[in-house]
Amino acid sequence: MGLKLGLPLILERGWREVSNLASRHSGEFYVLADLKQADIPDVDLAVCRRLAAAGFDGAVIHLFHGGAAELARSAPLDLVGVASMSHPGARLLDSHFRDLIAEAARARLPGVVVGATRPGRIGEARAALPGASVLSPGVGVQGARPGEALRAGADFEIVGRLILRSPDPVRAAWEVVELERGAIGGRG
Amino acid sequence: MGLKLGLPLILERGWREVSNLASRHSGEFYVLADLKQADIPDVDLAVCRRLAAAGFDGAVIHLFHGGAAELARSAPLDLVGVASMSHPGARLLDSHFRDLIAEAARARLPGVVVGATRPGRIGEARAALPGASVLSPGVGVQGARPGEALRAGADFEIVGRLILRSPDPVRAAWEVVELERGAIGGRG
Repeated sequence: MGLKLGLPLILERGWREVSNLASRHSGEFYVLADLKQADIPDVDLAVCRRLAAAGFDGAVIHLFHGGAAELARSAPLDLVGVASMSHPGARLLDSHFRDLIAEAARARLPGVVVGATRPGRIGEARAALPGASVLSPGVGVQGARPGEALRAGADFEIVGRLILRSPDPVRAAWEVVELERGAIGGRG
Repeated sequence: MGLKLGLPLILERGWREVSNLASRHSGEFYVLADLKQADIPDVDLAVCRRLAAAGFDGAVIHLFHGGAAELARSAPLDLVGVASMSHPGARLLDSHFRDLIAEAARARLPGVVVGATRPGRIGEARAALPGASVLSPGVGVQGARPGEALRAGADFEIVGRLILRSPDPVRAAWEVVELERGAIGGRG
């Protein structure tokens, strides 16, 4: 299990609080910074160094802007590349899915992000990147049911609003875990 | 004149200090947040609302991932779209320059970013988006001389390391301003 922390939280609670959260839970959970970095390699590297120093285990980066291989050579934490996004406007990204997977392969990234609403693409990423983890957001509010992405070959499901907007988030999280365990019963 | 503040500064000095800087200088300078946002519209909007509340006048967003028009309908500050980047890895972005300009036009963005090292593209953006400002980074360390992008049709040059790494940053900034004034002498 892990924690994914993003930009809205940093701008709401402040970087100090978010970095304290990361350093407190690193080791216990996998702590992933989801800033969807898409700057020049120099800037992305400066950000990755700060994230690693704060205790983050990994960072989500974009692949479309290029430079992933250069960044991966120096980044002191795991890089997880965005290979697909789930919103309706993501047409250009979508039309380059295989290019983005190839960019992740060239950079030897340990993980990629593929939306849970696209099970076919999860399978494709899984086959093209046998050594990498596939992380799937879009579970819950965006339409996929907990466990569906795992069944399609994903290693992790990213669940946000389904838990955060529940009146009882802890209970909601455990319900997600139960559904996921049911889904991978046949695999594990 | 304006101030562009990015993610490395937020993770170095903390969000509180950066937002204080923005609110203190908004009005005096145009204050632009350069987080190169590239998330789903919901997340990008949450970030834009925080930035506007902190006093930022504008935010740099990517165009490649789609959703700019949806974001622009609700964002409470100016959106400036990345139409080109200057690092060598930006091949995919580069091959879609016209698509990105078209995305900026559809979203009626008040500004786009086009690297100063690509004067031809500055002119193309200028012609395709007559109502928008063209902002050009890449002046100094990345290769363009101060004033070159303005001469090619840009409205603003973004100068970072040339000033920040100078032993006398204030003097370096004024030297840049002098070179830029010389460059636009014939225009203004």
